[in-house]
Amino acid sequence: MKLILIPDSFKGTMSSATVCAVMGSAIKKRMENAEIISIPVADGGEGTVDCFLAALGGKKITAEVSGVFGEKITAFYGMLPNGETAVIEMAACAGLLLAEGRLNPKVATTYGVGELMLHAARSGARHIILGLGGSATNDGGCGAAAAIGVRFTNADGDKFVPTGGTLHEIEKIDLSHIDENIKNIKITVMCDIDNPLYGKLGAAHVFAPQKGADAETVELLDEGLRHLSDKIIECTGRDFSALPGAGAAGGMGAGMCAFLGAELKMGIETVLDTVDFASKAADADYIFTGEGRLDSQSLRGKVIDGVAKRAKKCGVPVIAVVGGFTEGIDEIYAAGVTAVFSINTQAMDFSEARHFSEQNLETTMDNILRLIESK
Amino acid sequence: MKLILIPDSFKGTMSSATVCAVMGSAIKKRMENAEIISIPVADGGEGTVDCFLAALGGKKITAEVSGVFGEKITAFYGMLPNGETAVIEMAACAGLLLAEGRLNPKVATTYGVGELMLHAARSGARHIILGLGGSATNDGGCGAAAAIGVRFTNADGDKFVPTGGTLHEIEKIDLSHIDENIKNIKITVMCDIDNPLYGKLGAAHVFAPQKGADAETVELLDEGLRHLSDKIIECTGRDFSALPGAGAAGGMGAGMCAFLGAELKMGIETVLDTVDFASKAADADYIFTGEGRLDSQSLRGKVIDGVAKRAKKCGVPVIAVVGGFTEGIDEIYAAGVTAVFSINTQAMDFSEARHFSEQNLETTMDNILRLIESK
Repeated sequence: MKLILIPDSFKGTMSSATVCAVMGSAIKKRMENAEIISIPVADGGEGTVDCFLAALGGKKITAEVSGVFGEKITAFYGMLPNGETAVIEMAACAGLLLAEGRLNPKVATTYGVGELMLHAARSGARHIILGLGGSATNDGGCGAAAAIGVRFTNADGDKFVPTGGTLHEIEKIDLSHIDENIKNIKITVMCDIDNPLYGKLGAAHVFAPQKGADAETVELLDEGLRHLSDKIIECTGRDFSALPGAGAAGGMGAGMCAFLGAELKMGIETVLDTVDFASKAADADYIFTGEGRLDSQSLRGKVIDGVAKRAKKCGVPVIAVVGGFTEGIDEIYAAGVTAVFSINTQAMDFSEARHFSEQNLETTMDNILRLIESK
Repeated sequence: MKLILIPDSFKGTMSSATVCAVMGSAIKKRMENAEIISIPVADGGEGTVDCFLAALGGKKITAEVSGVFGEKITAFYGMLPNGETAVIEMAACAGLLLAEGRLNPKVATTYGVGELMLHAARSGARHIILGLGGSATNDGGCGAAAAIGVRFTNADGDKFVPTGGTLHEIEKIDLSHIDENIKNIKITVMCDIDNPLYGKLGAAHVFAPQKGADAETVELLDEGLRHLSDKIIECTGRDFSALPGAGAAGGMGAGMCAFLGAELKMGIETVLDTVDFASKAADADYIFTGEGRLDSQSLRGKVIDGVAKRAKKCGVPVIAVVGGFTEGIDEIYAAGVTAVFSINTQAMDFSEARHFSEQNLETTMDNILRLIESK
C-alpha cells in the first residue's frame, strides 16, 4: 500500500506538518508496511521552507541580511536536494512577527528578501521559489529589488531604497544594473490571494491595517503603490497592477513580476510542480488531502482542489479529511475527490472541538483505513 | 451490491425508520441497482410494531381493549407474514402518551395488554413478541395476567385486578385458570434495561416519578412490587425479582416471566432472531448500522454491538454511522464493527446540529459509498 499525504493546514488548529504527522501515525498503527509519502503543503507564509524541506529533503541555509527595519538579522532559506531550487519565505526577514511591537508599514522594507535571493543565486540556485505571506511591509517589493540591483531615483536624481512611505518619491526605475547572478534565474512567487496592487481591494486598503497603518497611512500607502505602478508602466511598458496577486505582501507580487519577471502561482500548484507530484502519485493507492474547512465558495487555489485535479489524471482515489464541510461541494467531487470525511466525531462547537483536533483526525483516519482494509 | 440497513434510532433526532429511509435514499442515488434490505430496529417502545412490519411485512390488527385506566380503546398489534408471530407494543394500550394529563401509576393497568395477547393467540399466533417500553403502569404486569386468566385474590378471598396501588392487597395468585389459547405460546419480552423489580434501582424508584408518582407514592409502589415478588415466590417457588429487566415497564418484565414463562430478551437480539438476520446477512456486501451515540460504556444490548457480533460470523463488513462516538471503543471493533463514522460534517453543538441530522446522515452515507465504490 502506497499512500500520499498532502494536506493543507487546518487553520487555527494544526499546521500541515502536524496533519501529516497525525495521518502518518494513524497509518503506521494500522498498516505497518505501508509506504507513506508526506507532503505538508506550504502556503507561502511562515513555515513554507520547512514544508518543502519536509517533503523533499534539502538543507536550511542561514544568511545575515537586513531585517524588516534595516537592522542586521540572521535569516534563512531552503536549498532543495537538486541544489538548484531555493525556497525563500519573505516572512524570514520581513515578517509580521519580526516587527511585533514596532509595526510600521511606512518604513518596513523587503531589502533582506532581495539579499536572501542573491545569496541563493550565488549558492547555485537556478530557480527561486519565493513565498509571500505574513509580511510587515508595503514597499511593493522595491526593497528586495534594490538589493538585487534595481535603481530607484527621486526627483533630484538621488538613488534611494523606497519603502511604503516613500514610494511616491520614485521618479525613475532603472533595471539595467540587476545582479548578473539573478538575471536569468526563474522566480516563482507563491501567492494564494487575488488582490490587485492598489485601490479598495489593493494591498494597502485590505492588508495594511493589520500591519499597523491607520486610515491616513492607508491612503498614503495606497497612493504610493499607485505611483509605483505608474513608474513601472513608464519603465517596462506593462501594467501589472491588476494581476491577481499583485497586491500580495504589500505589493511585492507586482514588484517581483515587474522587476524580475517572476511568475505568480498558487501555493498548491507550486508545491505540486516542485515535488513532481504526478510521478509520485502515479503508483499510489490512495491520496489523503485535507484542510480546515471545505465549503461551496470558490475553490480557486484550494489545496484539495489542486490535489484532486492532478490525481484525477493518474486515476488515484483522493480522500479529503477536513475540519468541516458544507453542502454544495459537488464541484470538489467533479474535480477528482473520491470522498470527504469530517474529523468531528461528536457534535461539539468548534471552541471545544478545536482542542481535540489531533485526536479526532487520528480516529477519523483510523476508521477510513479500516474501511479501506475491508475491501 | 447487497446492503443491509439495521440501525437503532438516533435518540432525540431520528427514528430507526427515518435512519433507514435516509440511508436508503443515499444508496439509491449512488447505486441505482443496489439491493437494499431495511430493518429499522425496534426498542420495545412506541413504534415497535411498525418497525417489525417495515422489516418483514405483515399486517396491523386492531382490537378493542381496556385502556390504561380501564376505558375501552382501539389498540393494535402486528401479525408477521408467517401468521404465527404477533408483535405487541404495550404502549399501544398502557403507554405514557395515552395517560398524558392524567398520569397515575397507582391505578394505571396493563389489562389491555393481556387482552391484545389473547386476541393475537386466538388469531393464530404461536409466538408473541411483547415490547416493553414507555409504560404508564406499575402493576407488575398483574393487569395483563388477570386478562389472561391469572386469578389474584385478597385477604377476604375476593378476586381483583391489582394495580400499582393495590399490589400489597394480593394474598394469593392462582395460575391454574390461564386461557388455554395462550398457555403453550412462546412469549418473548423485549426489554433493553437491566433494572430489578424493586429497591433503589427497581421499577418504582427509577421509573415511577416520570409516570406521575411523588416520593410517597414511589414508596407505596415499591412496597407493592416487593409484596408481589413474595407472593410470586409463594406461588411458583421462584424469585424473579433480581432478573435483569424484571423492573421493566412497572415490573411487567418480572410478571410476564412469572405468570407466563416469558423470556426476557434484548431488543436487538429479538429483532435479529425474528428477521432471520444470519441468512439475510450471509450474502450481503455491507451492513450499515448506527445509533445516536456510541461510547465506551457498557455495550450490552446496544444495537451496533448485537449486529456486529452476528455479522462477524458471516464475515460481512459492518459500518456504523453514528450521531457521535467517543474514544475507547476498541471493544466495538473487536465485536465485529469494521469502521465507525460520525455524521457531524461540521464542528457544531448538538443543539444546532440536531436540526441537520437527516442531511448530515445522507451526506456521510454518500461519502462512505463513494469510498466503497472507489475500491
